[in-house]
Order: sequence, then C-alpha cells, then structure tokens
Amino acid sequence: MRSIVVFGAGKSTAFLFDYFLNIAAKEALEITIVDKCFHAVSPEIKESTFFKLKTVDINNKEEVAKLIEYSSIVVSMLPAFLHIKIAKLCLTFKKNLVTASYISEEMKKMHMEVKGSGLIFLNEVGLDPGIDHMSAMKIIDDVTDKGGKLLLFESFCGGLLAPESDSNLWNYKFTWNPRNVVLAGQGGAAKFIQEGTYKYIPYHKLFRRTEFLNIEGYGGFEAYANRDSLKYRSIYGLDDILTFYRGTIRRVGFSRAWNMFVQLGMTDDSYVIEDSEHMSYRDFLNLFLAYSPSDSVELKLRHYLKIDQDDVMWQKLEELDLFSATKKIGVPNATPAQMLQRILENSWSLQENDKDMIVMYHKIGYELQGEKQQIDAHMVVTGTNSAYTAMAKTVGLPLGIATLLILNNKVTEKGVLLPLTKEIYEPILNELSALGITFRHEKVSYMGYNPNNVFG
Amino acid sequence: MRSIVVFGAGKSTAFLFDYFLNIAAKEALEITIVDKCFHAVSPEIKESTFFKLKTVDINNKEEVAKLIEYSSIVVSMLPAFLHIKIAKLCLTFKKNLVTASYISEEMKKMHMEVKGSGLIFLNEVGLDPGIDHMSAMKIIDDVTDKGGKLLLFESFCGGLLAPESDSNLWNYKFTWNPRNVVLAGQGGAAKFIQEGTYKYIPYHKLFRRTEFLNIEGYGGFEAYANRDSLKYRSIYGLDDILTFYRGTIRRVGFSRAWNMFVQLGMTDDSYVIEDSEHMSYRDFLNLFLAYSPSDSVELKLRHYLKIDQDDVMWQKLEELDLFSATKKIGVPNATPAQMLQRILENSWSLQENDKDMIVMYHKIGYELQGEKQQIDAHMVVTGTNSAYTAMAKTVGLPLGIATLLILNNKVTEKGVLLPLTKEIYEPILNELSALGITFRHEKVSYMGYNPNNVFG
Repeated sequence: MRSIVVFGAGKSTAFLFDYFLNIAAKEALEITIVDKCFHAVSPEIKESTFFKLKTVDINNKEEVAKLIEYSSIVVSMLPAFLHIKIAKLCLTFKKNLVTASYISEEMKKMHMEVKGSGLIFLNEVGLDPGIDHMSAMKIIDDVTDKGGKLLLFESFCGGLLAPESDSNLWNYKFTWNPRNVVLAGQGGAAKFIQEGTYKYIPYHKLFRRTEFLNIEGYGGFEAYANRDSLKYRSIYGLDDILTFYRGTIRRVGFSRAWNMFVQLGMTDDSYVIEDSEHMSYRDFLNLFLAYSPSDSVELKLRHYLKIDQDDVMWQKLEELDLFSATKKIGVPNATPAQMLQRILENSWSLQENDKDMIVMYHKIGYELQGEKQQIDAHMVVTGTNSAYTAMAKTVGLPLGIATLLILNNKVTEKGVLLPLTKEIYEPILNELSALGITFRHEKVSYMGYNPNNVFG
Repeated sequence: MRSIVVFGAGKSTAFLFDYFLNIAAKEALEITIVDKCFHAVSPEIKESTFFKLKTVDINNKEEVAKLIEYSSIVVSMLPAFLHIKIAKLCLTFKKNLVTASYISEEMKKMHMEVKGSGLIFLNEVGLDPGIDHMSAMKIIDDVTDKGGKLLLFESFCGGLLAPESDSNLWNYKFTWNPRNVVLAGQGGAAKFIQEGTYKYIPYHKLFRRTEFLNIEGYGGFEAYANRDSLKYRSIYGLDDILTFYRGTIRRVGFSRAWNMFVQLGMTDDSYVIEDSEHMSYRDFLNLFLAYSPSDSVELKLRHYLKIDQDDVMWQKLEELDLFSATKKIGVPNATPAQMLQRILENSWSLQENDKDMIVMYHKIGYELQGEKQQIDAHMVVTGTNSAYTAMAKTVGLPLGIATLLILNNKVTEKGVLLPLTKEIYEPILNELSALGITFRHEKVSYMGYNPNNVFG
C-alpha cells in the first residue's frame, strides 16, 4: 500500500477524493484526509476502507510531522498561505508535494533544495492555475515544435453558473471562495501587452475595460484583466510575444455592475467600520454617500453613480436588497469588503441543486512557414450540484492525476515545479479527456489584437 | 551665546533664517545651518556673523552627533523620515528639538523617555500641521472655557497662487514638494464624520467629492478631504463632536481636472514603467488607454473620460502638452507618478517673481448657553516671490518663534509634543500676528453640516 496524505477537506475536494477512491484498489492506495471538520466529505468516502479521516489541527506541528513522515506523497488543499508549513516538513522527511495554488515566493526559494533532495513540489496543477497552463503549453509546444513563432496569447477563465441555474440579474453566484471574488483585481494595476504596447489599468477602471468573447452554444461573455499577465511571458517562454493577456470571465454586464461597488469604495479591505455588526444594508451604503439629510440614499446613489431609473444596474442593486433599512450586516469589526461579502452571500450562495459552469478560452496566434494563423481553444465544464461542482472537478481531477503520476515515478524533472513540461501536462490532459474534460480547438484567421475587426 | 543648530537649508527656510537673523543680537543667538548644499540660503545670511554654514552629510552620524552635542537647541527641516535620527541623538545629548512635520509613530513612542529627561520635542509647528492646530485650539479653548460645547469642526488649508501670478488654466503651480501633490490622497480611504454619520471616500472618488468655500475678496475655492480627519478628534479633545472634517484647498475646477489623472492611473507610484526615460508624453498617456491602432490617443481619451471637445478639462490637458509626441519624459525607471510629476513640473514651476498664497479656513460650530453659534476664521498670506514664499513664511515663522520660546524656557510641558496648549500656541499666534500673519474671525449663524442650506 502507498499512502497519500491530503491536508484539507473543503469544498473543492469532492472529485479529488472520488478519483482516489476509483483507483485505490488498482493502485494500492491508502488515503488519509486531515482536517478539523469533515462535513464536506461524502458518506461513501467516510465509509470506504481505503480512507482514514484524521482530526488534526494544522498548527500542531508534531502531529502534522508524523503524518507526513509516514506518507508516500502529500497533497495540500489548504489555503495557499499554509502550504509553506507543509512544504518545509515535506523537505525534512523527503516527501513529494502537490498543490493547486499559485507558487509563492517562499516556495520558489526552496527550488534548489528540493531539487537537490531529488524531490518534486508540483504547484498550480488545479484549474486556473493548472488546466490553463497545461492546455496552453500543449498548443504552444505544438506550434514551436513545428518551427512556428508565437505572436499572440490571450487566455480567459471563469467560474460561472450553468444556464439552467442562472437565476439572478447578475448571472453570478459564488462557486469558489467569496472573499477572493470581492477582492479580485486589488493590490496594483493590471499589466499586459498588446501588439508590443504595454498597457496598465488601475483597479478603479478594471471593470470598465472588459474584452468580449462568444462561445457557440453558450452565448456571450466578458473578461476583465488579471493583475499578473506580464510575468507569465517568461514562464511560458514567450518573452518576445507581441500580445499577452490573461483575464477572468463573467457574463456580459457583471463587470459594469460590479464597478458600482468599486466606485463606492465597498470592496476596500484596508480598514474596519465601527459597529459594522448592527448596521443595516442601507446604513452601510450611506457610509459612501454624501451627507445630505434632505435627500434619500436612493437618489444620492443614482446621482453619484449616474444611474437612470430604468437602468438594469439599478435593478441589480435592488435584487441584493441593498436599500433595506431592516436587514443587518451581523459581522462585528468588519471591513467594507467583509460587509459587502456578507450581503452578497445572502443572495449569491449556490442552492443545493444549482449547477456551476467553468469556461476557459485561449486565443493563440502564431506565424508558421510565413503564414499567420490562430488557434482558438475552449473548454466548458458543467457541475452536477452544489457539492459536485465543475469547480471541484476541474481543480480536483488534475491534482489527483498529477499525484498518481508522481507516485508512480512518471515525472523525471525535480524541484519546485509548474505543470509546463510535456511529461507532466500530456498524461494529465489525456486522462482529463478520458474523464470528459476536453478542449475544442478551432483554426481561425489571425488578425492580431484587434477584437472589433476595425481598420481605421 | 546660545547655539541653534538647523538641519536642512531647503526651500522653506528663507523666513526662518531671516527671523533668527532679526533677533540674533538681542537674543544672543548663534545659528549653525547644516546641509550638503546652500543654494537656497540668501547672501545676507551667508555673510552674517551670527550664522555658520556646515557642509555635513546627514548620514555621517559622528559629525551630526558632534553638532547636536554642542548646540543649545536643534531644529530639523529635513524630510520627515529623517527626523528620527536627529531625535535619537537629541535624546542622547539631552537637547530640545523642533520640527514642522507630522509626528511619526516612532517619534510618538519616545514620549515617556523624552519627558523623563525633561526635554521637549515639539512637532507639527509649521503651517499645516502647525498654524492650523494653534488657531483652531485657540477658538476651541475659548469656547470650552466659557462652558460651551463643540458641535462642528471643519478646517481647510491650501498652498495656491496669488491672483496676480495665477496664469494657467489649472490655477495652480507647485509651491511645495511636487511629489506630495502628485501622491495626495493615496494610501487609504478618506475618513470623516458629518452630523454623527461616518463617511468614507475611496481615493478614486476623492477629487469628485469636494466642498466649496468662499472668501470675501478672494473668490471661490474648493477642498477635498484629507485622509486622517478622524484621528484629530481625540487629539483636539473633541471625541463626541458631530462633524469633524479636514480638507485641502484648491481653486474651483482643479480637483475635477486632477481626477482625470487619477482615473487614468497616472498617479500610481507602485510600479516602474519600462523605458520611461525615452517615452514621449503621448506614449505615456497611451499606456493607460485601450489598444486600438485605428483611433487617435485624443479620441480614445475623450471617449474613456467622457470629455466633450469644448470642455475646459480638455484645454487643461492640452496646456500641459500631454499629447506631444516629441517631448520626452527623460526620467529613467520611473513610476507613473514620477513621470506625471516631471510633465507637471515643466508647466507648474514657480517663476522667479511668482507670488504664492496660503489660504486657511476654519468653521467651528458650538452650543453656548443653550444657543447654537458658529465662528468662521480665515487667514490669507501672500508670498513676495519664489524664494520668499507665503509657504516658507507660514512654515518658518511659527517654527522660529517656537524655537525661541523653548530656548527661553517659556514651555513648561515636557515630552514629544504638539502645539495644542495655551502656553505654546498663545505666544506663537501673538508673535505671528505682530509679523502680519493674522486670522479674521466672523460670527455666522449655525446650520450644522449643511453647506447648501437645503431643507428637503
């Protein structure tokens, strides 16, 4: 028996554990799940003899160390900032590690030591980051293997709602960490390059500078720029590319409406509001509007954000009950962002039978044998219900497949890694495809970065 | 002879040194000015036998220590972050210290030690902070001494141009550190309280939420909120006050135009632009606009910021030559804020005979013997030329007067202080008045915070 230790049993682990369950007998696996609470773990897993559930506080270093010492490989599904603790113990006990999170600076610094120990710490092998890297590198490698030169790389991904569960005016519910959604885009200007020209978008304009996408059978989408596009140029080996852009997908109209919260200052996470707990939604809104006792909160808001009464933006605010003088925030010592999150969670939580939907879209332009061409590739994955989400599937499966790959010594590269090399991404993408997660590739005519097809 | 050591001989020291020169004989003073360069020091001072000029690098701890050791009192006119070095040496050698800067957390922490040594480190005794504190505390103390209760405190200050030197569409030139002007308002939401209601303005809305002021003989002004209004409530002993607001004064229309730079992202100081040195003003502007080769930078900007062709906002941009494809930034490895600063310095530097103007305005509302009343107080000071500015006068004179006061043992309070007590502010305000810096007080009817006189 080989022992896999998984730290964290949260929302996104359903498909990961089912994947391990399906292969446990054949691969002689024993899986130990470590957390403080297991309410998200299915009865099937709980009853399986292949699985052990250990209630351990992650801060209990001694217990955590013991679990790692007796494992064959470690998977961390913990919040990203906790990976480093696990990583250090993996180094001590010479164990391989797999995570779905962005590689941290601290983790990156361990590379030489990890490599020297002949170990693999594979990161960013979930959905985004994860499937985006792997599916993009496959196309990029195909082009360069044939002697082509990359000109344009645009990559978009979003966690949305399946059309049948899309029941609010925002066309959105939380299918992932709500806090990350509220804070999205903060902490610096978005940076990217288009046709050789650097472009910078400050946070307060981010949601007004969207790009549009259309996917046959699924309709229109929009995307706002991710913060860190430029740094992926060198990671992908595309230092000289003319256009490089990574974005987050939403249904058309979401960003324009979200921008209202940004403009008001409601997404600010840097200071605490006095008496936030007992404030009504209306009081909260009024914090960001001028003092004017002769005017209503409604009119002050319309005037401030220049919203006409028949604008759907207005209905979107009303749908959230934002003007309610009776609904209370109920969160003590909260920042504006935390207060907004609470209001949104009241409207945007997935219902038991809601289905989410993951959309990923790459546009990859290149020159091959003197001809400019473009491949558009997209993936759409729909969830089953609020436990078996498309998000959990697209994060958990590549992570599970990668874990098995390393356990079976199929990865020769050592060190702190991303899934960018063929020996890693190829078997993972093949297995994902067998499990129903596929990309549709399409050759389109290359126009450079020129989304509106305009010639001036 | 008593020896005053002044660290820093920059722009704002002209009136300070002249003040010392005028009283040097009578007060038996010897003044040592320490800096690396003395080009801002007048020939009169350079030739005076009461003054010594010492060329010392502020990082040369040994030399600096020696100067402090043999002084009677120390004045620091250095950039604010350098005060703490001087302060530590003052503690070592048991010397009093005077600065015009906001008290830092580090400085605040020295209070008990300074007090225990029987020393005075007096801070915030320039213009703003400085004269604002002193003139406000005088009114506040007058009201409370009579048994009144403060209801409203609004205080505004700005460094502007005298009408005769007001020669550009922005009605503005740099009369103080340009970097501080470009970064003004950044680093967190503005916070204040109006009629018992907390209000928060995010940076990207700060310049659209101005208040208006009118001063007889000087016309209309506007003010945007300072970041730290709330913390001054307790410093002034006004914890229960209904309205507390501090703001920065500009001529009407400045903030609306400045907001264009904020919206574009040009005031961002958090990242460096590649090849900033060789970029034209036009290239710089285009970094913040959509990629669209078929459209001009001009039209993209107008559309993005919704500026009509006959809007004065447009002329304000043209006046700065912002669309020039030939003018180069010329600053290597610069942030957007540093690049913008360079562009503005080309247009907004004071000419030799330009006169600046300081405007300060307090509105102080209170209840006395059952009646609600209000005092409005304002001060306007005009400069002589670009060396003898109103800014240098209103910073340097209170600093000089305070230094003499401490030297003559007229201050009994010890520790790290602000000029908030009568024994400090009264003699300083009296002496300022004798030197022509006066406030005009006016009783007006109290309306609470209700600037537009509206009843709904």
